[in-house]
Amino acid sequence: MTIKNYYLQIDTHKKFEIIDITSRINDLIDVDEGIISIFSKHSTTAIVVNENESGLLKDFESILNDLVPDDNYNHDKIDNNASSHLKSLLLSSGECLPVKDFRLDLGVWQSVFFIELDGPRVARTISLKVISD
Amino acid sequence: MTIKNYYLQIDTHKKFEIIDITSRINDLIDVDEGIISIFSKHSTTAIVVNENESGLLKDFESILNDLVPDDNYNHDKIDNNASSHLKSLLLSSGECLPVKDFRLDLGVWQSVFFIELDGPRVARTISLKVISD
Amino acid sequence: MTIKNYYLQIDTHKKFEIIDITSRINDLIDVDEGIISIFSKHSTTAIVVNENESGLLKDFESILNDLVPDDNYNHDKIDNNASSHLKSLLLSSGECLPVKDFRLDLGVWQSVFFIELDGPRVARTISLKVISD
Repeated sequence: MTIKNYYLQIDTHKKFEIIDITSRINDLIDVDEGIISIFSKHSTTAIVVNENESGLLKDFESILNDLVPDDNYNHDKIDNNASSHLKSLLLSSGECLPVKDFRLDLGVWQSVFFIELDGPRVARTISLKVISD
Repeated sequence: MTIKNYYLQIDTHKKFEIIDITSRINDLIDVDEGIISIFSKHSTTAIVVNENESGLLKDFESILNDLVPDDNYNHDKIDNNASSHLKSLLLSSGECLPVKDFRLDLGVWQSVFFIELDGPRVARTISLKVISD
Repeated sequence: MTIKNYYLQIDTHKKFEIIDITSRINDLIDVDEGIISIFSKHSTTAIVVNENESGLLKDFESILNDLVPDDNYNHDKIDNNASSHLKSLLLSSGECLPVKDFRLDLGVWQSVFFIELDGPRVARTISLKVISD
């Protein structure tokens, strides 16, 4: 049984941006069977699993803006990105997913997304660890 | 050290339904110690850990309806279930949990739930992977 | 490859309290490389990863109170802490994180937090499992 380590680096170009990283992860997986930990090393981003449909991705942005409205947050006195942190809090920094047949064992309508909540940024880093036997 | 693989299949009977899958998972676990990845292969469902009290399960449905009201979402033009996807986004498609003494190492008041957000559906599939040494 | 098991016990002193457990976890890790499962054995608490800035931690409390207002929930007839359960539902009971160089492989601005949502309580228990090769 082994653990393999990878990092993905992603440049983002907008304040809010959703990037499908499914194929980039699948390209790295070289084990038949296992579990992969996918973790973003930033607290104003998120990793989520959902459907890649362009209208739905716009709905993700709308619902997050509804749930975390622009407001006068305490953290904005330090660094003007509190709402980005709070959206990240409601989503998650990482997911732990099954691997099968040399790829993510996702459903037909599932993709893995990196969500930028405070872009644009250079070299956002995602840690990938694959456990296999 | 080994990884064992299982799938649970669940038929759901209502638009919104919460199903306690703790005992079905415990029945499958045949290792003393390890970690289990529980992942639903659908983007209109969720896996959560919380308390199995009937009133509380009704509160889960209410709060999700309050947070993601029925509205005109973009995805509804494609497939009339945007709010189900958005509720799934706020919860999670999977959990990674500890195993001890041949069962989930949960607290006294914790159960593992599969939440159907866009039922009824036949054969919803949950991937289970148990890592043990 | 091995799995090592630990428990952290935490006393909390307020109804809502955020405790940075990063250094306590790092002190326990004695493997070079791996994955750690961090899981709170309670359904009125949460484990999250975000930035440790005092103003931001206050914003966490505010946004959770906005999203889950005090109300007459069904569960309150049984046990007067429904809103604590619902906040836990929106966050998560656990995280699965990468380990590298004998510590959590977090970003510069990331910490791991235990969030008490229904304190004060004695001996809240967090399960830690480290998988390494």
